[in-house]
Amino acid sequence: MPDKIDPPHATGAAEDTVKKHSQPHDLVFHAGWFCPFVQRVWIALEEKGLKYEYREVNPYQKEPHFLAINPKGLVPALEHHDKALYESLVLLEYLDDAFPSPRSLRPTDPHELGLVRLAVQHISNVVVPAFYRYVQAQEPEKQRDGHDAFVAALRDVQAQWFVGEGAPWARGDHFGWVEAVLGPWVARFALLEQHRGFSASDVGDEFAMWAQRVLERPSVKATSSLPENYESVYRRYFEDTAESEVAKATRKGEWLK
Amino acid sequence: MPDKIDPPHATGAAEDTVKKHSQPHDLVFHAGWFCPFVQRVWIALEEKGLKYEYREVNPYQKEPHFLAINPKGLVPALEHHDKALYESLVLLEYLDDAFPSPRSLRPTDPHELGLVRLAVQHISNVVVPAFYRYVQAQEPEKQRDGHDAFVAALRDVQAQWFVGEGAPWARGDHFGWVEAVLGPWVARFALLEQHRGFSASDVGDEFAMWAQRVLERPSVKATSSLPENYESVYRRYFEDTAESEVAKATRKGEWLK
Ligand SMILES: N[C@@H](CCC(=O)N[C@@H](CS)C(=O)NCC(=O)O)C(=O)O
Ligand SMILES: N[C@@H](CCC(=O)N[C@@H](CS)C(=O)NCC(=O)O)C(=O)O
Repeated sequence: MPDKIDPPHATGAAEDTVKKHSQPHDLVFHAGWFCPFVQRVWIALEEKGLKYEYREVNPYQKEPHFLAINPKGLVPALEHHDKALYESLVLLEYLDDAFPSPRSLRPTDPHELGLVRLAVQHISNVVVPAFYRYVQAQEPEKQRDGHDAFVAALRDVQAQWFVGEGAPWARGDHFGWVEAVLGPWVARFALLEQHRGFSASDVGDEFAMWAQRVLERPSVKATSSLPENYESVYRRYFEDTAESEVAKATRKGEWLK
Repeated sequence: MPDKIDPPHATGAAEDTVKKHSQPHDLVFHAGWFCPFVQRVWIALEEKGLKYEYREVNPYQKEPHFLAINPKGLVPALEHHDKALYESLVLLEYLDDAFPSPRSLRPTDPHELGLVRLAVQHISNVVVPAFYRYVQAQEPEKQRDGHDAFVAALRDVQAQWFVGEGAPWARGDHFGWVEAVLGPWVARFALLEQHRGFSASDVGDEFAMWAQRVLERPSVKATSSLPENYESVYRRYFEDTAESEVAKATRKGEWLK
């Protein structure tokens, strides 16, 4: 039985943002309010100050009209002048390619951009799978392993990305891709704290400060629903009864392609 | 015991290309002649007509000076004005970012570029793992499954990428990222034919024609060693005794991150 999304729409600050973007527009954002991959793209849309139409989709229902937009049936997806694309990282690239102004979330220096891409690849391939393994771990020993692997994966982000002088953002550079790509999981740290005793300072003080600044960023706040609503969606993950593609792959020890 | 690379350097046309790029240069290509991930970047360097210095690395030896360039210890890696990057897909992006002329391998239209990125993601996440599972499968039934999964993954490339009017390249567009990213495995189809009875036409006629054009492309030929040398490197894969990270992950039913 597919997972039910309850409530079926955004709440809190995210609900206000949805309302501001309810008019038809040639840039359509197919989204699920609860989804961290969606929030990556939503943060980018807000950071860039773009006009867009927000449409709530329940991806677990795999409606034919949505499968026509994304054959994988996953949110997020974008339609722009009736041409569709999907996959959160492809969409982040697209937004900076198609709307270089008012501002890009990519650094302009090719080598710095390369470092960002390495960090993004590591976040997608290592950090995010480690998050779900940690969340879905049931036995105390597996939870400890899950904690340690998640912390190690985040320390690698710190080592790769917060090189030497601290985070690029802390050095005065702008909120960019690394923040947009990892930010949605930072916004879910509170769940990990409550259910698993995780703390951002387990990773390191510099990381904890970075995480705090991410949480306070207007684009992150404006795309976040109320804590109790994440709680009700994630309970199934913490009990390892969720039926999403991500949850099933994690349970099988695989990772969703 | 780490895999021995025998011979330790490129042969045939690739050996000539190495010789042309033996002078010191501020763009250093850390490569392994046998490696398909390396060949992606090598094809791009040749397509773009860039000057570079080729340096043969045995990545299985994990030498400290190479780990300083790529902490993962994998080829390919690039150093440009002493700044290093790695991961074949990050390097392809870098080459087009840092050297937009004489020509880019990316389409300029943002939506077309998005479709290319989707195809590249699918090739990396689905086609390439399916290749290794197929190659390393030992029992006849597993080999049949391996064949079918590999063919299905390539049919998806065809469906996603050779949409409607045929391949973009066939429509007169240039040899681009999809060719550079999948090309090295096309160059290894002959091994699959010999050891497993695979044929590109199992995927479809259009695909087989595309594969043939890729094989005839000067950049692909110039970066390919003699067939018998691939044979000696890949024998360990076909017998499932290879000890590379890719081979070990495949054996465990995982995929290298
Ligand atoms: N790789 C995708 C993952 C997107 C994804 O997994 N979205 C989830 C919601 S968070 C979804 O649509 N799930 C539907 C399902 O699992 O059937 C991306 O980066 O966009
Ligand atoms: N994800 C990497 C993969 C590179 C890779 O696996 N390279 C292999 C040679 S084909 C390597 O260096 N292997 C060393 C090892 O497995 O220890 C990329 O796309 O560049």
